Amino acid sequence: GPKMTFGPNDEGALQLDYKGQFQMTLRDTGSGENNSDSTMNFNFRRNRLALMGKYGDNMSLYVQTEYISDANITPFDVADTNQGSEFQLLDAVMRFKVNDAFRINVGKFKYNLSRENLEACEMPLTLDRSLFIRAPYTTTRDTGVAVWGNLFDDMFQYRVDAMEGRKAVSGETAPASNFRYSARAHVTLLDPENDYGYKGTYLGKKKVATIGAAYQFEPEVAYGDTLTRTDKKDYKAWTVDGFVEYPLEGIGTVTASAAYEKIDLEDAYLGGPGADPLTSGINGQKNGYYVKGGYMLPNLPLQLFVRYERWRFAELNGVFDQRIDWYGGGFNYYLRGQNLKLTFEANSTGFNKAGGTETTEDFMTYITQLQLIF
Amino acid sequence: GPKMTFGPNDEGALQLDYKGQFQMTLRDTGSGENNSDSTMNFNFRRNRLALMGKYGDNMSLYVQTEYISDANITPFDVADTNQGSEFQLLDAVMRFKVNDAFRINVGKFKYNLSRENLEACEMPLTLDRSLFIRAPYTTTRDTGVAVWGNLFDDMFQYRVDAMEGRKAVSGETAPASNFRYSARAHVTLLDPENDYGYKGTYLGKKKVATIGAAYQFEPEVAYGDTLTRTDKKDYKAWTVDGFVEYPLEGIGTVTASAAYEKIDLEDAYLGGPGADPLTSGINGQKNGYYVKGGYMLPNLPLQLFVRYERWRFAELNGVFDQRIDWYGGGFNYYLRGQNLKLTFEANSTGFNKAGGTETTEDFMTYITQLQLIF
Amino acid sequence: GPKMTFGPNDEGALQLDYKGQFQMTLRDTGSGENNSDSTMNFNFRRNRLALMGKYGDNMSLYVQTEYISDANITPFDVADTNQGSEFQLLDAVMRFKVNDAFRINVGKFKYNLSRENLEACEMPLTLDRSLFIRAPYTTTRDTGVAVWGNLFDDMFQYRVDAMEGRKAVSGETAPASNFRYSARAHVTLLDPENDYGYKGTYLGKKKVATIGAAYQFEPEVAYGDTLTRTDKKDYKAWTVDGFVEYPLEGIGTVTASAAYEKIDLEDAYLGGPGADPLTSGINGQKNGYYVKGGYMLPNLPLQLFVRYERWRFAELNGVFDQRIDWYGGGFNYYLRGQNLKLTFEANSTGFNKAGGTETTEDFMTYITQLQLIF
Repeated sequence: GPKMTFGPNDEGALQLDYKGQFQMTLRDTGSGENNSDSTMNFNFRRNRLALMGKYGDNMSLYVQTEYISDANITPFDVADTNQGSEFQLLDAVMRFKVNDAFRINVGKFKYNLSRENLEACEMPLTLDRSLFIRAPYTTTRDTGVAVWGNLFDDMFQYRVDAMEGRKAVSGETAPASNFRYSARAHVTLLDPENDYGYKGTYLGKKKVATIGAAYQFEPEVAYGDTLTRTDKKDYKAWTVDGFVEYPLEGIGTVTASAAYEKIDLEDAYLGGPGADPLTSGINGQKNGYYVKGGYMLPNLPLQLFVRYERWRFAELNGVFDQRIDWYGGGFNYYLRGQNLKLTFEANSTGFNKAGGTETTEDFMTYITQLQLIF
Repeated sequence: GPKMTFGPNDEGALQLDYKGQFQMTLRDTGSGENNSDSTMNFNFRRNRLALMGKYGDNMSLYVQTEYISDANITPFDVADTNQGSEFQLLDAVMRFKVNDAFRINVGKFKYNLSRENLEACEMPLTLDRSLFIRAPYTTTRDTGVAVWGNLFDDMFQYRVDAMEGRKAVSGETAPASNFRYSARAHVTLLDPENDYGYKGTYLGKKKVATIGAAYQFEPEVAYGDTLTRTDKKDYKAWTVDGFVEYPLEGIGTVTASAAYEKIDLEDAYLGGPGADPLTSGINGQKNGYYVKGGYMLPNLPLQLFVRYERWRFAELNGVFDQRIDWYGGGFNYYLRGQNLKLTFEANSTGFNKAGGTETTEDFMTYITQLQLIF
Repeated sequence: GPKMTFGPNDEGALQLDYKGQFQMTLRDTGSGENNSDSTMNFNFRRNRLALMGKYGDNMSLYVQTEYISDANITPFDVADTNQGSEFQLLDAVMRFKVNDAFRINVGKFKYNLSRENLEACEMPLTLDRSLFIRAPYTTTRDTGVAVWGNLFDDMFQYRVDAMEGRKAVSGETAPASNFRYSARAHVTLLDPENDYGYKGTYLGKKKVATIGAAYQFEPEVAYGDTLTRTDKKDYKAWTVDGFVEYPLEGIGTVTASAAYEKIDLEDAYLGGPGADPLTSGINGQKNGYYVKGGYMLPNLPLQLFVRYERWRFAELNGVFDQRIDWYGGGFNYYLRGQNLKLTFEANSTGFNKAGGTETTEDFMTYITQLQLIF
């Protein structure tokens, strides 16, 4: 979109962008009287308006809306009823730069745990980020303050933040109202990754080799027993991740990335009928990893990719210690770089154990996506 | 609103508009301890921000938000409680033009059934479009892909689309998850109507005579009996429509338009207690027509209009085979074309049968509207 | 934000702004198993995108969105569950100026009762406006039409409006559907206050002394007994207010302001089990006053402030004739005027009577706020 300047000496600038990811989804299950027929769906995965501004050299702004409507096809099933729509301010962050080594972000933005979550939504390597990597009691963004910077010629990056975590609620629901704290660092060789956001691929324009790690902590986040309001449980998470991308003259660009993440809620899911339901499930206690790889052709804007993930969930739809095996592959065709991109991905979701409250049949999902950044 | 350019050679352009329709409504019923007193209301009928963009000659974008708040005055009654508010992305469509005869729309936009629904919301002939013409299981827009184009010097237009229709839901609620398919064509003599959107009036700037027809189909859209999950019903609809506008030198501009529409859900409303409730009611099985006419003065931006509609609803508020007679009349005063317009309309809603769960007294509604496109 | 022009002779202009107030809140109660531990929260108090436009000299537009998410820390307690989020069009007003003495506002905008509510949200003297001053059955804005203007060299301002008030609902809920009418006037000596919006401080750039008064009325707004649908109650409110700001050479700028407001619903809260719940509580029948004062240093952009309020609520959380004593103090540090401002406020809320359905322990709240207008 257009970039407009303002201020007495044009020190201000504001760019307005639209970002859409429109998907056609086919899943080989989820519909029909026995929910065993295939499901067809057109929907937006992302549908955003973004404002990127700066004022002088030391202050900038990023504000972005998101509109999600009836996301009825979920990671594990197809919903019985329309899931409703939501228009929200997804990001609203004021950024202050003292120097390259000391920057402050204030507002609503991505917290500092996994690299995957910090990769730009419109620039993943595969169709999308991992479906299983989110932290509990929040979404991909949180509200608070982060301090971060680059040191040693951008070879080292540190980030610390204090965020809301579980939203402040009374003792009726949670044992305490504390902030959530994160620390993340990475070491990057070759070309720098010195921004707050990572990318899933640089389309062969950079040579990158980065390893990172992060730790996140929120004390007394949930009751072990909500009925008696006792047994306070802490939240702790850690992750390690690596990313390599290398363009090879005449051969193409290869990309490889992997991470492990562990979300610990001190076994709060074992609390029986008094267990806090948000300590289990897809964003509750879990651990897992992904590996993903890509190959982009040298003379054609076509990128092939594969992804594999394995996650253990403390409890998922009534099954204790469930394990999910997820693999997928497909391609990105860059009609106009990331601004106009066609992606196809086929992926498989497999359940290690049967039982529980939902179907545990393995299924396939085929998604065709058109991405426009305007 | 302003039009901003961008891109290395200014091939991009983006215009930002506000579009508001503010109404004062008086209805001669609906309030007071017996709901027989008159009702007074100020509210926005439409309240929108629109982004219209293009990039080069072959790609364009249309994104529009809508904010509706407590629309308590409904077509047939006054609500008991506030209806809540919703902010949504009403349109979000990427448009690709191969040539005038082959264009592709992708995203969320108006589906191709009735001409009335495809007429621009801010450029109707009467106060608003028909209240009764919507397709079932969706709104005025749907998500999907359309292919369309103009042939024979723009005298012929075709449109086909595959859209979401009823949103994908599990077999708990619907018998299948299928797309909805539409085909529409028109023949236009005199000046062309070669855009995707029609207008309800061209304010005497064009000579237009167009006849169109459309067909829409979605297989297995609803259970005949939701309790036993049996008896799959298809959705089929068809419509024919005509539009004529002719400016007569020194006399003024006359406009006339009419359409018939039939919405068929294979009598699913007869399913008794297991009937899917959305197969009946205002957007369920029905058929009807409208005729509307206008006369715009030659030397004053004043346009007088009348509208008559007759609809048969399979079931409406507990009355089977209910018939609605609706007529209205009023004027548009174009202070600055469609950009600043004052409209007044008085209309009457009549019920053919008494009984059911709601009042069936005939009533009058008087609406004064100020429209601003900025 | 940037200001863009448009129209054949650039008679149109549109400015796009972001306005955020990000807060860190600490309250010494509300959390923990007995709700007696302190509560910590990061959240936006305001999070807005604003469009300010004009077209020629006589027409202008103000459209503003607001996004509020999980405002769990309420004036009197901490919520048990997340309060949800809402994205809305907070303002959408078309403004027509015949001349300085006769102007018309149409749409959704602030109604004309208290000065405090009419003070710009981003330019209060203390952290925020009074928490207790809102009119019943609406928010800080209403929808309708206002006529206003300045007379006698801007020394006198009048405002009258007809607004929606209680939203139109059927006789099931309210005894009638009437508009709400307001009249407000002020006399201002020294420099004029001739805009529709007031400010809480002019930062020493103006010498102001204004006294104002307003009256508001909506007939038959609520049933005295909702069960029998009888005993119609009117709403009446009045207020008087004063504001003085004076910059003293070399000494600094002093600001003082006070107001009294009375909200009367004809004792509808005494209706027992049939009482309309919205006739009591924080926005029901009540009366009270605030006084606030500020001192801004002459050579440093630092402004110290204090505020005291006393309100009597007909019924609050089950306590009849409850009285609230509220006092607070803090400072504004203007890093870049109102465009980048850091505010700290400590405030105390005291209850005069114990009992009822919620805690009535006195508590302290400490808020640090960063305001950005971009």
